[in-house]
Amino acid sequence: MSISIFYEDCLPGLSFDLGSTHVEKERVLSFAAAFDPQPFHLDAEAGKASILGGLSASGWHTASMVMRLLVDQLLIRSSCQGSPGVKSMKWLAPVYPGDTLHAAATVLDKRTLLTKPDLGIVTFELTAAKADGTKVMHQVIPILFKKKAAMEAQDGQ
Amino acid sequence: MSISIFYEDCLPGLSFDLGSTHVEKERVLSFAAAFDPQPFHLDAEAGKASILGGLSASGWHTASMVMRLLVDQLLIRSSCQGSPGVKSMKWLAPVYPGDTLHAAATVLDKRTLLTKPDLGIVTFELTAAKADGTKVMHQVIPILFKKKAAMEAQDGQ
Repeated sequence: MSISIFYEDCLPGLSFDLGSTHVEKERVLSFAAAFDPQPFHLDAEAGKASILGGLSASGWHTASMVMRLLVDQLLIRSSCQGSPGVKSMKWLAPVYPGDTLHAAATVLDKRTLLTKPDLGIVTFELTAAKADGTKVMHQVIPILFKKKAAMEAQDGQ
Repeated sequence: MSISIFYEDCLPGLSFDLGSTHVEKERVLSFAAAFDPQPFHLDAEAGKASILGGLSASGWHTASMVMRLLVDQLLIRSSCQGSPGVKSMKWLAPVYPGDTLHAAATVLDKRTLLTKPDLGIVTFELTAAKADGTKVMHQVIPILFKKKAAMEAQDGQ
């Protein structure tokens, strides 16, 4: 896929609709079995008895599902070079099988990397909500992008 | 499994060795295909050409692998009730297939929840490093635990 989003294009205030993903019970269970095998992520009764109120997706699964939307709708057609981490992540409400999550990304700020001037770091606010508007996740995540100018210079060599 | 770690047992300064996990290439690829299908997580050549220096695990995969260690070595025998999110997460170095990651958790602080006095929130520092000592992840994560006193009162009802 050709690159259409560079560091230069990520202007503070710009928002990207990341679309939706459906939360499948089978995948909630397989993610939990692999990475977060706590009873309330694996068993309906244990979920009901917990403060989550029912069988719930691992927060790491929710974050991973939203990452997939971010990649499909934005990063895959960008000059993304990865991320140094997450500034903050809040799991705001339990995510249940059958939920549909809608996500969005908004540019908060950006700056050139002093150590690697061909790269810039763009900080995004990433949000996910259910169809009824219940917010389930809030993230602030810095992501590295190559500059268009740097890639054009490389191509011209 | 019976519960042996309650809110009361999580004393600031206490450290838990979370053991190790081996990073399998097949799992790096399958996680990336499901949740983070960027070229440097799926293809050796694209990895080499990127600032990651080689085919690398998604940061979300690294976080999930460390979560599995945290569950197996600590949470599964605790009164854990989930987590409200992550205060910060740093991906400090690329994780490659063939790496072995060793993780540890240290209690930073703890407090009772004002809204739910049967619960307390314990903030952990979570670290992961390769066999050669290279640090790959640093997290500060608050986790909810039921109080022993509250569970004993419940059992006695």
